[in-house]
Parts: sequence; structure tokens; C-alpha cells
Amino acid sequence: MESGKTDVLIVGAGPVALFAVFELGLLDMKCHLVDILDRPGGQCAELYPEKPIYDIPGWPVISAQGLVDQLLKQIAPFKPTFSFNRMVSGLEKLDDGGFRVTLDDGETIEAKVIVIAAGGGSFQPKRPPIPGIEAYEGTSVFYSVRRMEAFRGQDLVIVGGGDSALDWTLNLQPLARRVALVHRRPEFRAAPDSVNKMLAMQQRGEIDFWIGQIVRLTGNAGQLSSVTVKGPDGEIEVACTRMLPFFGLTMKLGPIADWGLELHENQIPVDTEKFETSTPGIFAIGDISWYPGKLKLILSGFHEAALMAQAAKRIVSPGERVVFQYTTSSTSIHRKLGVPD
Amino acid sequence: MESGKTDVLIVGAGPVALFAVFELGLLDMKCHLVDILDRPGGQCAELYPEKPIYDIPGWPVISAQGLVDQLLKQIAPFKPTFSFNRMVSGLEKLDDGGFRVTLDDGETIEAKVIVIAAGGGSFQPKRPPIPGIEAYEGTSVFYSVRRMEAFRGQDLVIVGGGDSALDWTLNLQPLARRVALVHRRPEFRAAPDSVNKMLAMQQRGEIDFWIGQIVRLTGNAGQLSSVTVKGPDGEIEVACTRMLPFFGLTMKLGPIADWGLELHENQIPVDTEKFETSTPGIFAIGDISWYPGKLKLILSGFHEAALMAQAAKRIVSPGERVVFQYTTSSTSIHRKLGVPD
Repeated sequence: MESGKTDVLIVGAGPVALFAVFELGLLDMKCHLVDILDRPGGQCAELYPEKPIYDIPGWPVISAQGLVDQLLKQIAPFKPTFSFNRMVSGLEKLDDGGFRVTLDDGETIEAKVIVIAAGGGSFQPKRPPIPGIEAYEGTSVFYSVRRMEAFRGQDLVIVGGGDSALDWTLNLQPLARRVALVHRRPEFRAAPDSVNKMLAMQQRGEIDFWIGQIVRLTGNAGQLSSVTVKGPDGEIEVACTRMLPFFGLTMKLGPIADWGLELHENQIPVDTEKFETSTPGIFAIGDISWYPGKLKLILSGFHEAALMAQAAKRIVSPGERVVFQYTTSSTSIHRKLGVPD
Repeated sequence: MESGKTDVLIVGAGPVALFAVFELGLLDMKCHLVDILDRPGGQCAELYPEKPIYDIPGWPVISAQGLVDQLLKQIAPFKPTFSFNRMVSGLEKLDDGGFRVTLDDGETIEAKVIVIAAGGGSFQPKRPPIPGIEAYEGTSVFYSVRRMEAFRGQDLVIVGGGDSALDWTLNLQPLARRVALVHRRPEFRAAPDSVNKMLAMQQRGEIDFWIGQIVRLTGNAGQLSSVTVKGPDGEIEVACTRMLPFFGLTMKLGPIADWGLELHENQIPVDTEKFETSTPGIFAIGDISWYPGKLKLILSGFHEAALMAQAAKRIVSPGERVVFQYTTSSTSIHRKLGVPD
């Protein structure tokens, strides 16, 4: 399994995590970001990419995705490393004062400093209320599609009425042996165009669409064979070797809840000088941090990132004198940013 | 003399003061800003309008003036009142818990809350080292031109080698009886074009230009009659009824140093929950504020403004429940900002 070393491991890749790369980069620290989503931007890019934000200072209006794009451009000179579709899991304190973090796929990363910028926590799929579903998770039941090929030739049941359910119905139909879409009512929360395409497929007999709820799973040793759908006209049994339920995402603090950090409800208390947690060397910034007066504003996270970077530098480069410089006037900063002389 | 009333009096009109108008406006508070400069933008617009800034989050690069322009656009829906070319002077605590502030021209403003966002303090002209100059200040010696007409028909001596000295030499020459420019050396820090124009005027005999330093003022009861310039070839006496020395600006805390606030060198200590000073109801944000970890960054001032606004609201509207809302999703905020439904 891979392993890596970095100055600063950042948990999360939302706007505050991205700006932390900038502030840390100005002080010559390299960053490695780990995020459960498949791209940078966090909640902004995932939940409301096109929504306008009005309170980013200096931007009378900017879309969430627009802000993420600007931040990516701003941090490009510092070339951060990203690990997407990954969640941090284990934490180990090393003898040299640093940390070894294990990701959910087993990869390990060693870092001198950890910055938790995980927003409201990690997005995790909601589990549908079907008795005994846990026994099939990871073998027959999946909450996301990492590789489409894994569904080739399968009897696939997709559950839900949002964009994910509809998009994957359309996209996996050509690969699967048979696709059945199950939704509890005839109305959808998905793009009308996708709904129309799905209904046309159903008309042509290319997929099945059942109105109802899944009440029972049948199978053996983690291998599904069928599901029972309870609809307006009673129960029917549908052949099923793979199931994809799309019941939305929920926010969870995740494994960092077990890192031994002091917690304040679902937030992590920090001081307002360094934004350090109760564990020295582990910082928390953005929505996940807490202190008196805390507001969950992106602009507050930017400030927290700047002050955190000063404190992180003292850990990453002990004994080195940190000279506070302005980006307008420092030629050494201009060099780092690639500004022509 | 005029007097006014407002919810919040803001001392300063730099980027942080401007963004404070936004955060206070979101919570329905009206603002009146007082600044010693003649336009919004503070130090940014005054000292380095064209300099690029690289650490405004979401702006990979923006000029100081560009940032000010963006902020003015962002706060336009809240229609703040500006008093330019004014300095706050006296402070009086009112029986109703508010404050009455007197400006240097005698105008008074009553406010429920005061926010000091005065950056490094107020810009004040540097006094040149000429013995006895104080006796002529405000009668024959001026450090800025508020009305050009005041110089019509005068024997005007302008001192300095920067843009202000050169620009006013060119602009006041048609009005004055005679203009003499005095600078200690033949090199200038002004725009080459202005220098060329001035030298051409000298060639044509329209102005005098003397290299040297002013060592003596002659006059009576505040009325100058001549100045003595000591140059490479000795001393000469130049007729002078008005003098304009342009020796640059210096930062001073100014009269707010006498408001009884606790000070930390030239900064004002605040807490990091509300950014309130040692006097309840008076807040300090931006470069002028101090707390452990404080960095003089514009982005920190934005955060300070947001948290201050929450605390100010409790003073301006006591007993009213403040619901924290996001600009992306709150229709009542959209209405305030003039966002179409």
C-alpha cells in the first residue's frame, strides 16, 4: 500500500481547506489534502455548485463553484497533492512529534501537522430503512459507483427519485443485464429531461420502473438474489444481484471523532490565536471548529487559515524566524507565486 | 453646525470599514463612515491604488483600488453615509447608552455603536523641520489644498519633490500671482511627465524652481511674507504669502487616543468573540485592533467585521432575536441585497 510524507495533511478540500494551502504555501509548507468527495470544493461544489454566494468579501456575487475555481487558481503555484474519494481513518502519533494517518483504503501519510478543515464532517450516504441491508453492503449493495464495469451483466436495482438514481439508471442500462428503478411515488426530484428519458426507456421495455418501497432482501452470504417491492397493488419480487440505493447524503464527523480530540457537540474547540485543538499539532479551521462567537462563514475560515499557518510554521520549521510579509510588497512572495519581476 | 443620527458610526473607510457596512447591513443596521481622506479605500486607495494584492481569498490577484471598487459595489444596497475629509475628535457618552461624536469641523453624530476601523490610524501630513512653522499653520502654511481659490493672487511657495508638489505646482500656477517650487535636489519622485511640464514652465519663466532647503520663515502674526532657501550657492530670499509643504503622510492614532480606550502600543485590544474594546459599545476591527495572534491582514478584518456585527446588533436592537442566516439561502437577505426573486 502507498505511503507518503508531507508537511501538512489537510482533512477536507472545501474552500477553507483550499485557502489554507495558500497561507501555508506562503510560508513554504507543502500540503496533502484528503477528501471523501471526488473533486475539490467540499459542500460548496457538492451541494450547491450553481448557487450564488453574496458574502465573500470583494465578490458582490459569486457561485459556489466559481469561488472554488478561483481558489484553485490562487493555490496553483503551491502544487498541493490531493487524495479524493478517500476518508482519513487511523491516527498515530510518531516519536519525532509528527503524525501517521491511515486512509480508508490503507494508504498512510506522515505529516508534521494536521489541519482538520472538514466542514460539517464527511458526506456519507444515507442508509435506507430496509431490514438486514448491512449484511449486503460492499458485496451486493453499494452507495456510489466507483467503476461502472462492476455492474456489467448484473440484475441491478436502483432505488431513489433524485438525480443520482435517474442518472445511473440511464448510464448503467447499457451495461447491466436488467435495470429496475424503484421509487416510492411517481414524482421525481430529478432533472425533467432525465425523467423523460427514463420513462421513454420504460415504454420501450428497456428498463422496469416500480412504484413502491423495498421491504425485504433475499440472498445468501452477502450475495443478493432478489428484492421485494411493496407497491400500491401489493408485493412483487424483483430479481436483483446488485442494488444501488440513493437516499441522499448525511454529514458525519466520521473517524476523526475517535482521534481523542475534545469535542463541542459536533465541532472541535480551538483557541483563537492558533486555531489548535486540544492535541498539539492538530489544528481545526472552518465550520468544524468552534470558539466563542464562532460563525460558520467561509470568510471566517479564511482568517482562521491565516493564523493557523503562522502556528503550523513554528512546528514544521522549529527555530526558524518567521518574518511576516505582505503579498503586495514582498519580492520573495512574488517569486513563490510566479509573479514576473 | 450639522448633526446626524445613525445606528453605527464607523471611523475609517478602508476595505475593512466598507465590509463592515455589508455585515451590519445584513442585520439591518445603518452606517455612517468618517474618514480623513477624500474618498473611500483608506490606505489601499491612498498609498498603493495600483499595487496588486495576492492574498484576498478568491482573488488570485486584485489591485488595491480594484478591491475597494468591488467592496463599494457589494455594499451599495445598504446606502451608507460618508463624511470625507473629516476626522473624529470628541467623544461623549449619552444617557441612553449611545455616543455623541464630534468631528473636527464641529459636526456631531449620535450613534448607538462605534466601530473603529481606522487601519494604522489617520494619515496626517508630515511637518517639515523649519523653525517656527507652527505659528503659520492654518493661516499661511497649509498641508493640503481643500479649495484652489484660496491660493488665487498669492505668492505661493510649494515644497517637495513628489507627485503632490509637482501636481499642485502645475495646477495652481494659473491662479497664483507667482509660484516657486523648492526641492532639496534636482531629482524628483514624481511622474516624469509632470516633471517635464514643470521644467518647461520654468524655461518659459512661468514659475521659479529653487534647489535647496527652507531654513527660515519671515512674517508677522501668522502672515508669511518671505522664506529663505539655502541652496548650493548660498541663501536667497523668496517672496511668499502662502506655503504648501508636501513632505508625505504619517500615520497617527489621532484624537481616538484620548477616548479613554485601553491601548496596546498603537493598537486597541479587543476580545475575539465580539471585537469590543475596553469600552462597551465601542468596537475595533482591522489593523487597528489587537488580540493574541493578530495579523494585520485585510482578510482578518473581514472576519472581525462579521463577528462584531452580531454583537453590535444586540446593542442596536436589544431583545430582538438574531437569526443567523446564509446569504445563499435566505430570501430576506436576498430582498435586502435587491436580488430578483
